[in-house]
Amino acid sequence: MTRKELIDNIYKKKSFLCVGLDSDIKKIPQHLQNDKDAIFKFNKSIIDATLPYTVAYKPNLAFYESAGIEGLKQLKMTMDYLHSLDSKVFTIADAKRGDIGNTSQQYAKAFLDPSGDFNFDSMTIAPYMGEDSVTPFTVYEGKWVILLALTSNKGAFDFQFIEAEGEKKRLFEMVLERSKAWGNEDNMMYVVGATKADMLSSVRAIVPNSLLLVPGVGAQGGSLEEVCKYGMTKECGLLVNSSRGIIYASNGEDFAERAAEEAQKLQKKMAELL
Amino acid sequence: MTRKELIDNIYKKKSFLCVGLDSDIKKIPQHLQNDKDAIFKFNKSIIDATLPYTVAYKPNLAFYESAGIEGLKQLKMTMDYLHSLDSKVFTIADAKRGDIGNTSQQYAKAFLDPSGDFNFDSMTIAPYMGEDSVTPFTVYEGKWVILLALTSNKGAFDFQFIEAEGEKKRLFEMVLERSKAWGNEDNMMYVVGATKADMLSSVRAIVPNSLLLVPGVGAQGGSLEEVCKYGMTKECGLLVNSSRGIIYASNGEDFAERAAEEAQKLQKKMAELL
Repeated sequence: MTRKELIDNIYKKKSFLCVGLDSDIKKIPQHLQNDKDAIFKFNKSIIDATLPYTVAYKPNLAFYESAGIEGLKQLKMTMDYLHSLDSKVFTIADAKRGDIGNTSQQYAKAFLDPSGDFNFDSMTIAPYMGEDSVTPFTVYEGKWVILLALTSNKGAFDFQFIEAEGEKKRLFEMVLERSKAWGNEDNMMYVVGATKADMLSSVRAIVPNSLLLVPGVGAQGGSLEEVCKYGMTKECGLLVNSSRGIIYASNGEDFAERAAEEAQKLQKKMAELL
Repeated sequence: MTRKELIDNIYKKKSFLCVGLDSDIKKIPQHLQNDKDAIFKFNKSIIDATLPYTVAYKPNLAFYESAGIEGLKQLKMTMDYLHSLDSKVFTIADAKRGDIGNTSQQYAKAFLDPSGDFNFDSMTIAPYMGEDSVTPFTVYEGKWVILLALTSNKGAFDFQFIEAEGEKKRLFEMVLERSKAWGNEDNMMYVVGATKADMLSSVRAIVPNSLLLVPGVGAQGGSLEEVCKYGMTKECGLLVNSSRGIIYASNGEDFAERAAEEAQKLQKKMAELL
């Protein structure tokens, strides 16, 4: 999906909501758990219910991989379903990959290649291994790298804020700065956690127009208003993710209905903020 | 596998060789390529041929994921085969994962859990997201985190050598330093690329006894002698990986025989260096 298509979608739906499909067999409603395709059926219900309020879906790979090969089959079914929808949505493989060049090429093939099992629009990449670990993901037309800059977890403080000697920049700012040469605003976004919303001004000083994927609203405690205050651009420039707050809003038979309500609540706030 | 078992194995086999199974359907011998289980059969032949000279095998996840669900089946067959061997070997999921705590838990389950599809002894983890992204991998008894410190690629220079203001330490040294509190010498190793062998003294100054996984000997240009000069401890303390130099030594019908020769060459040098 191109930048223009994504932004058009945001303004059409008046939403920059991304729903995180962190679908855990132990947390989905009891009445689905014995189904052979429980995870897919859960995802399909969540997608159907939240689609009017959502521009992106982000399956978190760990939750599928933890169920082994069977889990990956559920992911493939989910992706096939997303691709079959009339209403186009942006898809994110939350995979946090990154390796030496020849290996990153294989990861790119695994998740972005249109002839592969998954055909995501984008995937999240960790920057620790530098340029040649990132650029193999930028070669697919209309596909995106979403590079980790500032993450939403406590461990973000271990390394991401380290000040580089003589640079007057912190590691996450160095990542933003250097990676600008590895892609462009049409194929590279950044992860910036909502729990660090006040840092978004520092991020915007370096990447004023880039799209940002912002996790951490909801269960992790980030505020949507703060994120928009510091991170929104005149083209919106944001995808705000909520996972647990939506998909586990209820674990009864009304889970999809309740997920829709939570997604709609966020979408209404987003419509006001746009 | 415990530290003692691994080190005993190293001295028994007089080898600290790890064979990287970066098995690529496009690069394996022509005569295998049409087999439904080509990758598994290739791996099995490589394992059978190199086992006398090798203490560890390291499937590179990207090469299996790039073949989709079918690729993961080939990986499972490979792991089942490794587990069936009388001769115990150490297994490494070269996966470069790492995410917020609840997600890292799922990745740990995916690759380390004995009841899962793969049941690896260890997996490689990227440190960018800090402590809570790493510690979930240390909870499985007898299993290991292998944390990226200094990688063998060109991109390593983008961030890993950044000097931390006022710390007189570079990022890879900060990773070594801080991560010591997240695990111990019985459940945490580090990746240090052979192409940066002279850096091994700096690494050993911080983690004098930790096991190091050293990629980059062979196709990437690192030298075994240099690695041992700067990185070896009195308990060896090294696993040196070679992938392409062994598994693609020939792409004819003699591929397994030639792989054995290359592995034996390295093992002989290792026996002298031990």
